[in-house]
Order: sequence, then C-alpha cells, then structure tokens
Amino acid sequence: MSAQRRLHLNAFLMEAGHHEASWRLPDSNPRADFDLGHWIELARLAESAKFDSLFLADGPAITGTGEFRPPGQLEPLTLLTALSQATSRIGLIATVSSTYNEPYNLARRLASVDHVSGGRAGWNIVTSAGAEEAANFGLDTIPDHAGRYARADEFLRVAKALWDSWESQAVVADKAAGLYADPGRIHRIDHRGAHFTVAGPLNVERPPQGYPLLVQAGSSEDGKDFAARHAEAIFTAHRTYERAADFYRDIKARTAAAGRDPDGVIVLPGIVPYIGSTEREARELAQQFDDLRIPEYGLRQLAAVFETEPSAFALDEPLPAAILARPKLEGSQSRSDLIIELAVREQLTVRQILSRLGGGRGHFEFVGTPEQVAGTITDWFVGGAADGFNIMAPALPSGLATFIEQVLPILRGKGLFREEYEGSTLREHYGLPVPANQFH
Amino acid sequence: MSAQRRLHLNAFLMEAGHHEASWRLPDSNPRADFDLGHWIELARLAESAKFDSLFLADGPAITGTGEFRPPGQLEPLTLLTALSQATSRIGLIATVSSTYNEPYNLARRLASVDHVSGGRAGWNIVTSAGAEEAANFGLDTIPDHAGRYARADEFLRVAKALWDSWESQAVVADKAAGLYADPGRIHRIDHRGAHFTVAGPLNVERPPQGYPLLVQAGSSEDGKDFAARHAEAIFTAHRTYERAADFYRDIKARTAAAGRDPDGVIVLPGIVPYIGSTEREARELAQQFDDLRIPEYGLRQLAAVFETEPSAFALDEPLPAAILARPKLEGSQSRSDLIIELAVREQLTVRQILSRLGGGRGHFEFVGTPEQVAGTITDWFVGGAADGFNIMAPALPSGLATFIEQVLPILRGKGLFREEYEGSTLREHYGLPVPANQFH
Repeated sequence: MSAQRRLHLNAFLMEAGHHEASWRLPDSNPRADFDLGHWIELARLAESAKFDSLFLADGPAITGTGEFRPPGQLEPLTLLTALSQATSRIGLIATVSSTYNEPYNLARRLASVDHVSGGRAGWNIVTSAGAEEAANFGLDTIPDHAGRYARADEFLRVAKALWDSWESQAVVADKAAGLYADPGRIHRIDHRGAHFTVAGPLNVERPPQGYPLLVQAGSSEDGKDFAARHAEAIFTAHRTYERAADFYRDIKARTAAAGRDPDGVIVLPGIVPYIGSTEREARELAQQFDDLRIPEYGLRQLAAVFETEPSAFALDEPLPAAILARPKLEGSQSRSDLIIELAVREQLTVRQILSRLGGGRGHFEFVGTPEQVAGTITDWFVGGAADGFNIMAPALPSGLATFIEQVLPILRGKGLFREEYEGSTLREHYGLPVPANQFH
Repeated sequence: MSAQRRLHLNAFLMEAGHHEASWRLPDSNPRADFDLGHWIELARLAESAKFDSLFLADGPAITGTGEFRPPGQLEPLTLLTALSQATSRIGLIATVSSTYNEPYNLARRLASVDHVSGGRAGWNIVTSAGAEEAANFGLDTIPDHAGRYARADEFLRVAKALWDSWESQAVVADKAAGLYADPGRIHRIDHRGAHFTVAGPLNVERPPQGYPLLVQAGSSEDGKDFAARHAEAIFTAHRTYERAADFYRDIKARTAAAGRDPDGVIVLPGIVPYIGSTEREARELAQQFDDLRIPEYGLRQLAAVFETEPSAFALDEPLPAAILARPKLEGSQSRSDLIIELAVREQLTVRQILSRLGGGRGHFEFVGTPEQVAGTITDWFVGGAADGFNIMAPALPSGLATFIEQVLPILRGKGLFREEYEGSTLREHYGLPVPANQFH
C-alpha cells in the first residue's frame, strides 16, 4: 500500500435517512421518497463534499406494508439519471437485480446512463433474495441461492460482451464516402448459455467508462466468489473491526486467486454515524432515533430475513434455537448470518436485536464525537479492514451534512480524502482503468 | 367537434433527422445519437415552440449493420429522463416494447419518470416486430403477431393495476402516531394470467398523471383493436388524405365500440416536411436529401420489412409478385401493407419505392412552402383525418427550426395551435383527464 493510498467515500442515500424511524423526526420530510427536490439537495451536498459517488439500494417489491415506514422508492437508474443532470462529477451507483432483468435491456440502460452522465454510472449487482420480489415476477418461491448466482455470472459475461461490441474505432462518419461505421468493428456476440441466448451487438456505442463500475454487496460464499470474478467495488456490512479485517483479507485473496489485481477491488463497509459534540450528546442522538422505532416494524423485517413469521419470535427472549439451527436459507444468507453472529456474540434478546438493526439493518453503527468517527474510519482504513466507507446517515440530509462539516475536515487534515475531484468519471475517482475491449 | 378544438403537435426526434441520409448533410452532427447536447438543444427548441411532446421511436436491437446509417440510440426512457431535467413543460413519450419487458419493472420505470418529470411521461407501446430484436431475447423466430398483442393486452391490464395500487390517500405520514400509510389503501393486485403472475403492489406511489399517457402506433387489425381498448394517442402513417381519413373514422368507431369516448383518442399521423420559400426551393431541398441516399441501405431495410433478402428485389422492377401474394407477415404488418399500397397505387419500381421511403420510412412526405405545409395540416385536421401531427423533420435541428419559424406562425394565426402552455402535464396538453383509480 503506497503513501498515496486514498480513502473512498460513498453517500449511501435512503429516503429521510437510514434509520427506520427517520421519517418521524421533527425536521424530516416524510414524503422524501418521491420528492425529486430532496434527492437533488442530497446529490449536490455529496458532490460539494467530493464524495466518490451516490449509492442507492433497491429491490423490485414493496418493503413491508407501508404502515410503519415509507415502503417504496423511485426506480434507482431513473432517479440517478435525473440526478446526473443536477451534478457534474459525482458517481452514480444503482442497485439492479440480475435475477429479474434481461441482459440486453439492462446492459443498454446502464450504457445509456454512462453516456448521459459523462462516465459516472455504477451497477450494484444483486440477485434479489426476497419472496416479495419473486412474487412480482411469476415465482411462488425464492429462486435458489446458487442458481441466482449462476445466472448473475452468465448475465455479467453477456453484459460485458455487449458493452464491448462496438470497438472504439467503429464509427468512421465519412460523410463524403457515405460510410458511417466499419461493420467489421461492430460485433455480434452470439451468446448461447444456460440462462440467456443473445445475438447482439448492443445498439449503444461503448460507453465512456467502457462499462459501468461493477459493484457487489453479497457476502455469502457464492457472493464472495462472484465478487472475486467480477466486482470492482464491494459494499459490505461488519459490526467489528476483526470481522471487517477478516472479510477484507478473504476477498482480496479470492480476487488474487481469480487472477485479478486485489487493488482493483475497493472494499467499502457501511457505517451509520451518530455524531455529537460529546459522547453523551452522540448517545442522546442515537437514543432519540431508538425511541421513535416501532418494534412491530423491526419484528416483521426480522421475520422476513429468516423467512418465517413474526410470531416465531418472543421480544424478551434470545433468537429461537430453531432459527439458530436452521440450514442455509435460499434468500439473504449473509444478512441472516450477520444477525445471528451479532445476537450470539452479544447475547441479545430479540428486543435488543431490533434496536441494533434499526439504524442500518445490520451495518456498523458508531456513536461518538467527530474525532472518534474519523479515528475509527482511519483505523479501519489504515489497518486493512476497508478501502473506504459507505456513509449511511441515520437522517438525511442532516446526518450527511454533519458528517461533511465535522468529520471530513479531520480526514482531510490527515491527507486521507481528496480536496477536489481529480478525474471526471467514477472509475477515475476510484483509480480504476477503463477495461480492455475483448474484441480488440 | 367544438370551436375550441386545438391541434396537437409532437416533435418526433431521431438522430440527425428522419431522412436516412441526414447524417451526411454538411451541417449535420453525425455523432448526434450519443451526444446529449444535441438532444437538449432539440428538446428546448420544441419546448420553446410549445409542442405537446417529444417522441422517440425505439427497438431493442441494432438497426442495420451501421455501414450506411447510425445504427443505435440511447435507451429512450433514460434519454427522456435526462431531458426532463433540461425542460419543464413538454411531454416525453418513449417507445418501449411490451414483448421484451416485464410489467412490474416497466410500470415502475414509467411511474418513476412521471414522478421526476412532474407528470410528463408517455409510453408508446410496441410489440416489437423484428427478427433482430427477437434474437436478443433468446428467440430464434419473431413471436407471432396475435400472440404479441395478447401479451400486450395483459401487460396493460397488469400495468394499470400496478399504477392504481396506491390510492391517492394512502400516505398519512402521521409522525406522532407512527403511522406512515394506511395499508388498506395500498393494494396487492394478485394478477394471475396467461403471460404474467404479479402480486404487487407497485413500490412507487401513484404517479402525477395516474398513469403515463398511453400511445400506440401499430395499424394492423390487432393493433387497431388494441388501440381502441387502451390507447389515448395513436401515431400512424398515411400518405394520402383519403387513407388518413379512413383510418381516423375507423379508429374512432372502434374506440366507441370498445365503450370509450372517441375524443379520448388523439390521432396523430406523421408528416415529413421539406420546406422551401418557393415550391422549387422545397423540391431542391428534397432532392438534396435524395441524392445523399445510399440505395443499398434502403434495399436492406425493405428486405427486413418483408422478412426476405435484398436479392429478392430488382431495383428497376416493381415489387416481385411473390411479395405481393404473400399472406400476412408475423412482423410489421401495417408497415408492409403501407409499402405495398404505395407501390401498387403509384406503379413504382423498387428504386422509386426506396426514394419514397428514404425520408420517413413510409410516413407522409410533403414538399412545399410554409403556407402549403400549414394548409395541408389544416385540411387534414379540419377535415377529420387527424387531431394533430407528429412532426418528423428530415434534418435535425434545422428542419424543426424551420417548421417552428415558418409554419407555426401560420397555424397560430388561424387559432389552431397554442401560444403558451395552459397546463403542466402531458395529459393536460392533450386535454385528457387523470384516469380513475380502479381501487377507489
């Protein structure tokens, strides 16, 4: 690791904040989800602070019933396309499912977003673990975990071939000769695989970044192997330094074993910072959020992760033995493992678990002063547990503004974070090259 | 038809122009397709002239080989989302296939575009007639015509239910009580049909227009029946007043027979205007385009429409008898019928047919002075052959600018076209209401 190693920071945006009760805060806009002005404000705030990118999570289904929390959101590639016109430099990473899309359509959309944003598109590839999502696409059960990742792998191979299908010298545009493009440089891909048959070529010129930055967020064994083959950035959830460092070593080793440069994979844990000018103020802030939580909501979410009913849990008991003893789920393997690990390590009741999950759905919550937040980020970064962080403000925009005003100056003082953008594309912010074209 | 009946005008945009050789003109930007600046210029030009909407055609496949004409384009909903942020009033109509998309994903994207544009989204529903498109989605042959329309009909029923799935009063956002939404007003749709099984609800709040303006462009029997059930605007191609008037009467009668108000369906033929200050100048302009045409390109396109090879045609002979005698195609029925009708009526050779199709792929080409263009538009509108037009400038932006500068003032002088926008949504420009919610 060279002296120039720089921290990467993404603004992970979510409605009125990551805390599940954020919409109830006095200053919150509870209609933030469908209010473009809210998103433009957040995008410009993050760009003014020179964040690497905006990131939006997603799934093609309603979240819960809507009773206790905003249950929907704008389709993320659409929202980020709109935000691309309100910003000029910040990267734009959308979560899109490889299970419920077709590679031709999605490769084309991502290439189009990369064109209209001037090379700022990123794709967080998810395989969609939920039963609610499956039911919107004709499936009565969640498709099996390994099968989803097999499809995702083939999806990526098809998408990369499509993005490469126009060579950079393909368009000649010789008006006098009447030759628009060299057809020998626009390639059919003629893919025939287990999941997809796609002739190509793509009907979009190769985008500025070659292809969008490829991001992955699953931490199951299948997920990590997939990441080692394809991911250029990894979003991950760890509640302790040790766990994060183990993951970091593991993923870098798997990447090397897959024949890729480990420095070409940027590992970004999430952090939910509750920031106060004193530790006591920070704890009071966190408590204010926790007091607004509706336990019934958390219980339903917990039941969904474990593919069971809320009645399977007793609030003042630990996780039921039947849950702990279950074999791997077909849905959210890494999320369910993370919750079990937390519950066992800290010997928590279900009520306590719900409190711990309320802020960031299992992500690392940190309560402290700006110096403490900056110190922890620095420790993880320097120690080899992270290449940067997904900043998950519990309330938006206020929590992001506080992080920018109070924590970023400390990180900049240490020379860890950029003062200005040096490049103009997302790949340039990450220090990653435009991929070679397989047809050259 | 009341005294207040107003003409509707859409700016049908296509790369450097609708004429297939437009990219070769001295002033053309041959890289227009992927140059966002080009599209923003066109969008602002059309909005400054108070056009009802922008319209983009599309298909999920490359057009030709690229040798003779720009073969690709940005995905239209992505492009229109970007343009929504450079404009504030003009409608935004994207062509998207019901054959190669899933209703949950597409309903969500369209609702999202409607949200971020403030109620300006329109969907031109196509069933995708081409073999090249089929080959990008695992199909070795074009899916049959009737089957595509049956799928489209079910697709629309699912999409409308999803758009309706949030009642307008669903979100309560009662912070104190911790009640976000009334779950009794966010509805599952539980659709189970021949093509789709979709649980719902949509994860996007009902959009400003209720649902996007629904547009249809196929003129086959299946297409017209589909339009009578679902379409609120119809894009159509007719080369004579008589044909257009026949179609107009037919579609209004079918709409009434389907139990809908015929005035709720806006019929918009395409027109490709070659405008000169004298008839002679206009003819010279049209000739300038025709001289740049590459016959080999047109021949390949003609062969594709008739699902055959270019070698099936002889340039200086009429259409082969074998083509005229063929039964209905599975692909582009209305386009192939239109070409046959033109060729037979005017006793054209293949070479002459290619010249007639070069400007607008079969749409009505009109060569004349601004007064003549305005007169023809007025005649079709007043006589009952059109409720307005899709303006298909042979070169862009120049042909659109000429139409705006020279033809629009004449139409405004007759009181036929708006001076200013009166509404802010696309439905308001068309004088169409927000549809009732089926769950109310």
